[in-house]
Amino acid sequence: MPCTAPPAAESVALRSVHSFHVGGHCRTLKGLPVSERSMVQGGAPRRVDPNGDYVLGQMYVQAFRLARPRVALPVLLWHGGGMTGSHWESSPCGGEGWLWRFLSAGYDTLVSDAVERGRSSWAMYPQLYAEAPFFRTKNEAWEMFRIGPVGGYASDPGQRIAFDGQQFPVECFDNFAKQWVPRWAGHDGMALDAYGALVERTGPCVIVAHSQGAGYAAAIAQRYPDMVRAVVAIEPGGMPTRTRQRLPPHLFIWGDFFDTSHLAWSGYRGLADGYAAAARFAGSRIDVLDLPRAGIHGNSHFVMLDRNNDAVFHRVIAWLHALGC
Amino acid sequence: MPCTAPPAAESVALRSVHSFHVGGHCRTLKGLPVSERSMVQGGAPRRVDPNGDYVLGQMYVQAFRLARPRVALPVLLWHGGGMTGSHWESSPCGGEGWLWRFLSAGYDTLVSDAVERGRSSWAMYPQLYAEAPFFRTKNEAWEMFRIGPVGGYASDPGQRIAFDGQQFPVECFDNFAKQWVPRWAGHDGMALDAYGALVERTGPCVIVAHSQGAGYAAAIAQRYPDMVRAVVAIEPGGMPTRTRQRLPPHLFIWGDFFDTSHLAWSGYRGLADGYAAAARFAGSRIDVLDLPRAGIHGNSHFVMLDRNNDAVFHRVIAWLHALGC
Repeated sequence: MPCTAPPAAESVALRSVHSFHVGGHCRTLKGLPVSERSMVQGGAPRRVDPNGDYVLGQMYVQAFRLARPRVALPVLLWHGGGMTGSHWESSPCGGEGWLWRFLSAGYDTLVSDAVERGRSSWAMYPQLYAEAPFFRTKNEAWEMFRIGPVGGYASDPGQRIAFDGQQFPVECFDNFAKQWVPRWAGHDGMALDAYGALVERTGPCVIVAHSQGAGYAAAIAQRYPDMVRAVVAIEPGGMPTRTRQRLPPHLFIWGDFFDTSHLAWSGYRGLADGYAAAARFAGSRIDVLDLPRAGIHGNSHFVMLDRNNDAVFHRVIAWLHALGC
Repeated sequence: MPCTAPPAAESVALRSVHSFHVGGHCRTLKGLPVSERSMVQGGAPRRVDPNGDYVLGQMYVQAFRLARPRVALPVLLWHGGGMTGSHWESSPCGGEGWLWRFLSAGYDTLVSDAVERGRSSWAMYPQLYAEAPFFRTKNEAWEMFRIGPVGGYASDPGQRIAFDGQQFPVECFDNFAKQWVPRWAGHDGMALDAYGALVERTGPCVIVAHSQGAGYAAAIAQRYPDMVRAVVAIEPGGMPTRTRQRLPPHLFIWGDFFDTSHLAWSGYRGLADGYAAAARFAGSRIDVLDLPRAGIHGNSHFVMLDRNNDAVFHRVIAWLHALGC
């Protein structure tokens, strides 16, 4: 694939930046205890009554519309588990991320926070959500994000063991940890309903998604095969049940260090490979960019945050352009 | 004050959109139970161990830098209690918000989510935060945001009672509710540390803040009187203890319906009035824009989201320009 993406722009002219929430449904709570609390600096205690009407299941979307888009279809950027849309905005050490790159490349770009995360808000448990969330430690992330081997994390940054040739900027790992948010298990249905509402609102689009979000993108491409024109699935974590449908084109992108990483990865990759095989059998175009096989070495789970992400971005743009997206 | 703000721009040229987190400190948890759960679509159960290192107290900031700013100082937009920065981005019925207006007026603009809210993430309780959060019902918001009288909310939108002449777009109230996030009581110190870290990073700036955020802005202006060049405090909810310092100029903005609203408002307004009197006594310039007295009627607590917010925005810009900001 040739490299056709322009470099990050000196400036980008926008005709709009705004946000909206899609999806969500109402629930009413009764019988909860009322308290008296001061809620602001110096404020007298006031009655705080949690009984009443709530909304849950909604999703936050921030939309960047270009003054002069050069591509007809907007790009939707979907993050992975325990994250928010913020990882598309910046590299872990600062500086612009793929949001800026897609804008520079002429795409209207919409960044969402999955239901329950970031600006999408979350709801009371066990009253509205069934159970408590899960919180990711730095220890687990070091292994699951394939920064280093199982047991390679240490509180002292100087004592941490990263994989040789690691492209993730490990010196900014603690900064990156500030982005992580709690997540719930078992909320796939609610998350997918909101992503579906987004695609219905947006219309024809390209989805570029990471990890858990890439699994959601595959599911939404099944549900809206005419709306979703292409899926770039970066390191999908989780996949819908296998498909017999002809699907829009997918590009699966995989980083490095699968052989030496946390065992969960062989499972996740196996799921995606099985899905790809079934989709191909149904006549779908499913391309795979295995970075080490393509001569690009050292990528973590967060390919788009790694030092060499530019080389990967060029290939993504080339793949989209070849499809006419 | 003359009206000097330009209309919302047809397009805005940016040289950067990116985000970062400021502040935060590390804590380690031990002795918590480990579980086995599937965390993604179709994924096999895996070990999820919550023991290890966390960061808490960090704050998310999204920075919009103009290609050609027309004003030297950036504007920091700080939201209120139970909200995120998203309310600066859009009106409740859609369309751009004050973020776009400040960009159109030539200001570099930074929008943050307070600690514990939105993309700033939140931490496990009672292990890291001391207690559970508070959730705002639509019922309470209807009263506390001065949309309508106490008891004026009903689940059926057609049965709700709003104040006569209400400028808040009540038909979009349910949409607005999708933005609200849980909040904790007693986190003022943590929130202020992160806002302080933001001002230290930004340098000289203007703060435009709402409700609880406006009380935080007043506290940060005390702490960094040379960095904070002006504070626009829209309907401050809560205030720091009174000051004997000479402070940078403040503009307090108040909406309508104080006489007929939830009683908490007379308390909040009294706090702000007392603070303003003490600051003036210490030689500070403290201006007050009481909208009904200025002939602008019908504003809710969310002045910048009301239908007539344009008239208020013009006055804010005129006040800043008169200060040379």
